[in-house]
Amino acid sequence: MKKIKKRDQEYIKQNNLKMILDIIKDKRSISRAEMVKMTNMSPTSVSRIVGSLIDLGLVKETEASSSGVGRKAILLDLDLESVMTIGVYINKHIINVGIVNFGGEILYQDKIKLNSKDIYPEAIISKACSIIKQTIKDSKIDCSKIIGIGVSLPGIIDSKKGTVIFSASLSWENVNIAKAIENKLNIKTIVDNDVKLEALAESLYGVGKNSGKTALVNFGRGVGSALIIDGEIFRGVTNIAGEIGHITIDPNGILCECGRRGCLQTFIVEDNLIEEANKVKEIVDIKEIFEASHNGENWAVSILERAVTYMCITINNIVCMYNPDTIVLSGSLIEAYPEILKAVEEKCKTLIWSPLRGTFKILYSKLKSESDIIGPATLALDTFLSLDI
Amino acid sequence: MKKIKKRDQEYIKQNNLKMILDIIKDKRSISRAEMVKMTNMSPTSVSRIVGSLIDLGLVKETEASSSGVGRKAILLDLDLESVMTIGVYINKHIINVGIVNFGGEILYQDKIKLNSKDIYPEAIISKACSIIKQTIKDSKIDCSKIIGIGVSLPGIIDSKKGTVIFSASLSWENVNIAKAIENKLNIKTIVDNDVKLEALAESLYGVGKNSGKTALVNFGRGVGSALIIDGEIFRGVTNIAGEIGHITIDPNGILCECGRRGCLQTFIVEDNLIEEANKVKEIVDIKEIFEASHNGENWAVSILERAVTYMCITINNIVCMYNPDTIVLSGSLIEAYPEILKAVEEKCKTLIWSPLRGTFKILYSKLKSESDIIGPATLALDTFLSLDI
Repeated sequence: MKKIKKRDQEYIKQNNLKMILDIIKDKRSISRAEMVKMTNMSPTSVSRIVGSLIDLGLVKETEASSSGVGRKAILLDLDLESVMTIGVYINKHIINVGIVNFGGEILYQDKIKLNSKDIYPEAIISKACSIIKQTIKDSKIDCSKIIGIGVSLPGIIDSKKGTVIFSASLSWENVNIAKAIENKLNIKTIVDNDVKLEALAESLYGVGKNSGKTALVNFGRGVGSALIIDGEIFRGVTNIAGEIGHITIDPNGILCECGRRGCLQTFIVEDNLIEEANKVKEIVDIKEIFEASHNGENWAVSILERAVTYMCITINNIVCMYNPDTIVLSGSLIEAYPEILKAVEEKCKTLIWSPLRGTFKILYSKLKSESDIIGPATLALDTFLSLDI
Repeated sequence: MKKIKKRDQEYIKQNNLKMILDIIKDKRSISRAEMVKMTNMSPTSVSRIVGSLIDLGLVKETEASSSGVGRKAILLDLDLESVMTIGVYINKHIINVGIVNFGGEILYQDKIKLNSKDIYPEAIISKACSIIKQTIKDSKIDCSKIIGIGVSLPGIIDSKKGTVIFSASLSWENVNIAKAIENKLNIKTIVDNDVKLEALAESLYGVGKNSGKTALVNFGRGVGSALIIDGEIFRGVTNIAGEIGHITIDPNGILCECGRRGCLQTFIVEDNLIEEANKVKEIVDIKEIFEASHNGENWAVSILERAVTYMCITINNIVCMYNPDTIVLSGSLIEAYPEILKAVEEKCKTLIWSPLRGTFKILYSKLKSESDIIGPATLALDTFLSLDI
């Protein structure tokens, strides 16, 4: 059913508070007068809304150094310590936890490595809760300022219910991790897919800051993508939108971990590149393919050339479907081997459909692994921050 | 830059008018009391807004037959004849023109066939204007009720500027058709991509009526798709989003009309199927492939089997990227050979990635070629209807 979007006074009030707060968050130092210009609102309205945000404790006045004659301008900034959220990232090797302030900065951080025995959801959730508690304790932060926890995981997630529907990498199925953490720690918790949250972090605090339509592609253990439109995650009806790794490329191709043949990610993921290499030379790390390629060994050159081609195909296909203004590339394959980027950019010149050329910029993840913490913490902030006055 | 969304009293007023109008448009016979229930608005607000819509001449009261004792209920419906728009569809073979009333119904329709000499934009635009004028004249409709013209074309369209950036099928480049028609006829004109407008029509008046996220795929001369979210076209930054026909499937595949190799549509479009068939048997019409397949000729069975596989891949790939609740299939290949649908549905059972199964319905275009008129007429209505009071 199409949405009925009721708009009333309360909606306007909340929307205006959020808009002014977003501007202050974006600029981090701005006068009321500048906001009047940006929004076309009246000075009275802007002052009233700013007043409410100051009353809520979220915004504070700071004094600019005088630029010459006349009064010093009063500027506004976030009160960075007013509210905090916790970001948690879980994959099969590690749990990362961080406390993030209102400005998206990580204040305290801790992590534990998981061993191969830690596969059961109960065990991992229990470890996550311990390290969250310990991090809060170590940080000496006033607990009342922590308004929520965000959890980031690889897999198909029902974010509304708080459930991991399916995670191939963790071998989880139907785990309500949000409820489990809430019950243990008594802090509101939300969970979402790791690539979507990475895209959210890059869009708000990273290289996508000035973009209205940011698509992020992560090349690593799998291939995933996510689209952020004006700061909102594009989810689809069941939060699956963006699973470009499982678009079918070759119905007779090699088997994917999903049980189907020839998914796009089978041409790119590290495990598959290593497996191919082993037909020629025994290797255990993808690093060895790059080294062999540098030394001009044909098999390695060929493996990387094909991977680069399919990375460009990934970019072309995302742009065909989403037509974003910005593509952010990230993931272990990109981070460990920046030389691959040059090859991708070069190949894109011919592989991208001509009407798409010039419609988007290719940028590289700025936050890197920090986004694993900032992403879920940001989602928790967006979800649990109350602007009720 | 992310959008600054100012919301003020005027925004609420317009939004509420539009919401109530959309409900009446959807239900076409509804009481004020039912709308109060649907919207959670106060009876006073609903009555005031309905009053404004009646004043604007867009809505009228009708009397329901009594369901027994008590007062007869007063129902509301659109005043169908209050405003009209003209829908125009152009491809290289035909110009279709229709006058559409406020309820999305085609009142008058005319068409002319184009011959292969009519390739220049000026000639086609001039013919389109003649037939629009003639249709208005024949219909005897009061011209003042016609608020705009919508034009639908295959190609990459800058809808804001009114320009056809590129149409492979018409061999047009940078043609400002909207301005040309406006200048000739003095009626406001908007132009958009044919598949996007078909999707809009199906979403509002066809099988997608109850869907909030409808993706339409058109299999015909090309392969195109479009996504409609709550009645709005998902465009991307340059109105290219949805061009699934040009996602790359095989970088070593056969050449596409776009000049690149192995685009998805090269595996499906009619011209390519006929070209393949001619390696075995001289044919001119795709009908002959279906006939040969019915007679068990292997080459024809093989050609259609592969086309069906790639149609399923198209569906899988759209669902991976958009995660819609509904997929509408349309286009000449589907319309002329409904037996292909059964094969597609059967093959989808194994080709669709398992987390996507059950998240969407496959439906078949209801409006068929009517959507070529209703789509652009609807866009013109959405664009040019003024709710100022």
